[in-house]
Amino acid sequence: MSQRLFTFIGGNKGPWRVTGIDALIGDSLPFANRPEIIAGAEVPIRKDAAWVLRGITSNERYVTRDEKTGLAARQQGLGRPEARCAALIPIRKNPQWWALTQDERRRIFEERTKHIQLGLGYLPAVARRLHHCRDLSENEPFDFLTFFEYAPAHEADFDRLVAELRACEEWNYVEREVDIRLARDDA
Amino acid sequence: MSQRLFTFIGGNKGPWRVTGIDALIGDSLPFANRPEIIAGAEVPIRKDAAWVLRGITSNERYVTRDEKTGLAARQQGLGRPEARCAALIPIRKNPQWWALTQDERRRIFEERTKHIQLGLGYLPAVARRLHHCRDLSENEPFDFLTFFEYAPAHEADFDRLVAELRACEEWNYVEREVDIRLARDDA
Repeated sequence: MSQRLFTFIGGNKGPWRVTGIDALIGDSLPFANRPEIIAGAEVPIRKDAAWVLRGITSNERYVTRDEKTGLAARQQGLGRPEARCAALIPIRKNPQWWALTQDERRRIFEERTKHIQLGLGYLPAVARRLHHCRDLSENEPFDFLTFFEYAPAHEADFDRLVAELRACEEWNYVEREVDIRLARDDA
Repeated sequence: MSQRLFTFIGGNKGPWRVTGIDALIGDSLPFANRPEIIAGAEVPIRKDAAWVLRGITSNERYVTRDEKTGLAARQQGLGRPEARCAALIPIRKNPQWWALTQDERRRIFEERTKHIQLGLGYLPAVARRLHHCRDLSENEPFDFLTFFEYAPAHEADFDRLVAELRACEEWNYVEREVDIRLARDDA
């Protein structure tokens, strides 16, 4: 079975250095120097961690087959040597979002926000892994953790992508968003 | 926050008596006399439990607004005094199902299997709570636990409902299904 569960530990270890933590909506997270990213259920205890966030990759909730084919043709994986910048963006949506039905959420997500089409425009520069948190337990602090990687030359593109998404209707339903920017030591 | 996490402990306690455990697809579960149903994350340790299954209620994945309105107008909740029969049906779907995109899953689920329409025909007799397991951890034994309650007079109707679902295309993607039937002591 492929690994689906990932834990992000806000501590002092690992290849990524935090360059900024920005609370866009709601409460921020305490500063941490380096997030450690652990795959699987066995997570080391780090007593000095400022935060621990967990998420699990899962089946896609909105993408159609045509969209998936378009994404798969262009997207690249995490871990490219040139991708020396990254962002971890935890998000929580509000109860109104979760009370919507599938057709209503899809309409906002893609027909009105064009979430998938917007992201497609930034491929292959921006690589991404989406982790779901909402159904891990009753009391997760976020619903989603998205981890993005890109080359330093594409930082402005990435800023434009997240700004475009934040200006769209889907973001009316976001009640907490923290933007954690990261760089490899040689970036 | 409303409680979403439920644990079913296959032990010797609680108001429901097991009247049969039937493995329809794949491995069965060991026999247990009485399942205990615990809401919330604090779960008592029962060393004699034959099995422990967890699931979390979540947002709907397929239902449209029109379908939800139709369901809400007819469905009743768990715990009706006349509902002295119940079934706990854990299901796991295969990797092919989870690799489908949302439009493909919806097409099989409703346009071809008519899962929602079929269930609607058995309301309000059959009450139901769906629990998701797949994203609780990487290694849950099932993807869904559905708990149904109905009056003894509707047992044959319930048998017909599950038989109709099992004959449909969606069930080609079920790789494990156990049907645990329960009765209150006075049923």
